[in-house]
Amino acid sequence: MRILVIGGDGYLGWPTAMHFSARGHDVAVFDSGVKRRWEAQLGVRPLAPIASLHERVATWKAVSGKAIQSYSGDVGDARDIRATLRDFRPDTLIHYGEQPSAPFSMIDAAHAIETQANNVLGTLQLAFAMRDLTPDAHLIKLGTMGEYGTPNIDIEEGYLEIEHNGRRDRVAFPKNPGSFYHLSKVHDSNNLILATRLWGLRVTDLNQGVVYGTDTDETGLAPELATSFHYDGWFGTVINRFVAQAVAGQPLTVYGEGGQKRAFLNIRDTLQCVEIAARNPAAPGEVRVFNQFTECFSVADIADRVTAAGSALGMAISRQTVPNPRVESAQHYYNPKNSALLALGLAPRLLTEDVLQGMLAWAARYAKRIDPRVIQPTVDWRRGGGRSRGDRAENRAEDRAEDRAAGLASAGAR
Amino acid sequence: MRILVIGGDGYLGWPTAMHFSARGHDVAVFDSGVKRRWEAQLGVRPLAPIASLHERVATWKAVSGKAIQSYSGDVGDARDIRATLRDFRPDTLIHYGEQPSAPFSMIDAAHAIETQANNVLGTLQLAFAMRDLTPDAHLIKLGTMGEYGTPNIDIEEGYLEIEHNGRRDRVAFPKNPGSFYHLSKVHDSNNLILATRLWGLRVTDLNQGVVYGTDTDETGLAPELATSFHYDGWFGTVINRFVAQAVAGQPLTVYGEGGQKRAFLNIRDTLQCVEIAARNPAAPGEVRVFNQFTECFSVADIADRVTAAGSALGMAISRQTVPNPRVESAQHYYNPKNSALLALGLAPRLLTEDVLQGMLAWAARYAKRIDPRVIQPTVDWRRGGGRSRGDRAENRAEDRAEDRAAGLASAGAR
Repeated sequence: MRILVIGGDGYLGWPTAMHFSARGHDVAVFDSGVKRRWEAQLGVRPLAPIASLHERVATWKAVSGKAIQSYSGDVGDARDIRATLRDFRPDTLIHYGEQPSAPFSMIDAAHAIETQANNVLGTLQLAFAMRDLTPDAHLIKLGTMGEYGTPNIDIEEGYLEIEHNGRRDRVAFPKNPGSFYHLSKVHDSNNLILATRLWGLRVTDLNQGVVYGTDTDETGLAPELATSFHYDGWFGTVINRFVAQAVAGQPLTVYGEGGQKRAFLNIRDTLQCVEIAARNPAAPGEVRVFNQFTECFSVADIADRVTAAGSALGMAISRQTVPNPRVESAQHYYNPKNSALLALGLAPRLLTEDVLQGMLAWAARYAKRIDPRVIQPTVDWRRGGGRSRGDRAENRAEDRAEDRAAGLASAGAR
Repeated sequence: MRILVIGGDGYLGWPTAMHFSARGHDVAVFDSGVKRRWEAQLGVRPLAPIASLHERVATWKAVSGKAIQSYSGDVGDARDIRATLRDFRPDTLIHYGEQPSAPFSMIDAAHAIETQANNVLGTLQLAFAMRDLTPDAHLIKLGTMGEYGTPNIDIEEGYLEIEHNGRRDRVAFPKNPGSFYHLSKVHDSNNLILATRLWGLRVTDLNQGVVYGTDTDETGLAPELATSFHYDGWFGTVINRFVAQAVAGQPLTVYGEGGQKRAFLNIRDTLQCVEIAARNPAAPGEVRVFNQFTECFSVADIADRVTAAGSALGMAISRQTVPNPRVESAQHYYNPKNSALLALGLAPRLLTEDVLQGMLAWAARYAKRIDPRVIQPTVDWRRGGGRSRGDRAENRAEDRAEDRAAGLASAGAR
């Protein structure tokens, strides 16, 4: 296959690129670098030191003997993405190129808008580019299980057969997510359903669970090949955060009772799932939806498991309950289906004590790099929030400036 | 009430502003003027000459003795909308400030993106501004019946009670619309559902049918108060287009068999519905959805009615079948509900022969201004399309420039 990995510099994108390259496919990465800029703005960095994308590609060539092409560009920029499709001519596109943090999207209007502009308009730009330049290629688009929210009914894979007043239809599964980030993925899915119906694109929409894990077969081959494992409150997912807190000797931060249930998978299974999707492409005109996860846990379950795995290694791990900054149900029904990828051969790597101990051991090598201050949530879903004390002061100054501007603008407008 | 009409310079916005002002409310209009720029870009203009917004407001003052405040700004610009909310302090916001044309959104990637950026990000900006500045105000947001598409089940008003595998839930009604414009309204609705759940806003989402009509009680009081009736293929809705074709002696352009059914209402009933919504605000934390229409017709029905009304006036009206440029079902089930507004007192003004003859007589006064060339559809939903021959040539030139750029970019990236 000729595979273009959009967002190929990210936590999942870079391991995905190496995974396919190692297996003999022609791979290119496409990335704007904006994730690294967001990290700098928020004052966070991955736990392991991360090489530049150029260094990553060069090291991969040296270690594996295989070339990964690299394109610098923004998927939302017509010239960037069209030039890349014309040059590389992929038959498979794997689209990770989105702002991935729910708290980021809830800071304020500007961050909500940046998230939806980057994600929704970028994917729309990509769909048009594929229509015009690679109409037969297969788009594998990363969505999230969070799109569904926590409905009181079983969560099917993308679609739902319903009967209403004696008539039947098959509809897109109703979604009710909990952040403007998660909504950006809902908007993407809805846009792609139309684009595919109109233009006969081939699309697989992967509604992925919460990913955890520190490494893959390829990331450990050289330090420059490590992936960008985040433990911070912005880009760090819950298991990864708990592992970092454990090795830093910090209490695990549980939101409320920890009764919120979510779907999870190992980063290695992300690669396995994406490969299964790529090897079994969607038909023309089809938006195929897979729920991509292997297990469901409550947040309290996760804390228990991390604590048990660490205790067996002699670590003393405590727990701290903090008010849930998100607006979500403390207890709820949660029964998502995930049979499609299993039927295609997914062999799950489950969250065993061994796996957690491997993560703890890996993270311990970088324990000195952990900044406990960036783990706690700072955004309240009800009020938004600053990225730091300095930002909040700046926001207040902006408010006062707006008040003054308001007085002037209205006088002029009347 | 203190009512801010966002998009207050438009076909519905301006009559809405006068309607509430005439009834003694404090009214302000907020508009960026972008709709007039789009008209200029597309080479179209309203059938009746339209005064500037400043002239409209001044004439209204002279005719009625009542002031409408006017704010010039973009709802997607934080400073513009926040300054206006701080200054005017509305208790009711009526949001028409969106790109309203489906064909515009299907021209190419740039127009699809402009539509979703303007509509979705603008409404998101507004929701945050309301959270911070007017959290108790009532937002009346104009959606469209087109959000639902044409499902094989009855269309309820916004929500659907479903049973699945023995469990029940109430979900947002699944939507499957036919253009990136219609999708922008779906995205809006989904964003507002979250914003309201998080912040306790009061929102009424009006899924409006296709509006027709030339005038309201107030638009006829002076030439400067006329509304921007469009008959062109971009902003002209089907009944308005047919009326203009009839008075211009052109055949009525029917897409395919004309079996597509849609929901319709008179512009006077738009005002009535919006007033009912404003007088009966949504509760805090509620996104209340009304299906805002009075009757359903197929496109062929409409052509028959316009032909009959014109024939009774002695007009010879012919019909031309053109291939449907849209991707939609030629024949389909269509049974949308609209009981909520009727229960609150909506007294429909139906599409009678009298009403159509009134529209034909009004349009005949401006028959010399009709340009038949702008009525035909030029955008194909499957391929997009240019706005004019010149634009298509320009697009080809851009393609060639992209080809050259592609060669350079890839050489540099490797």
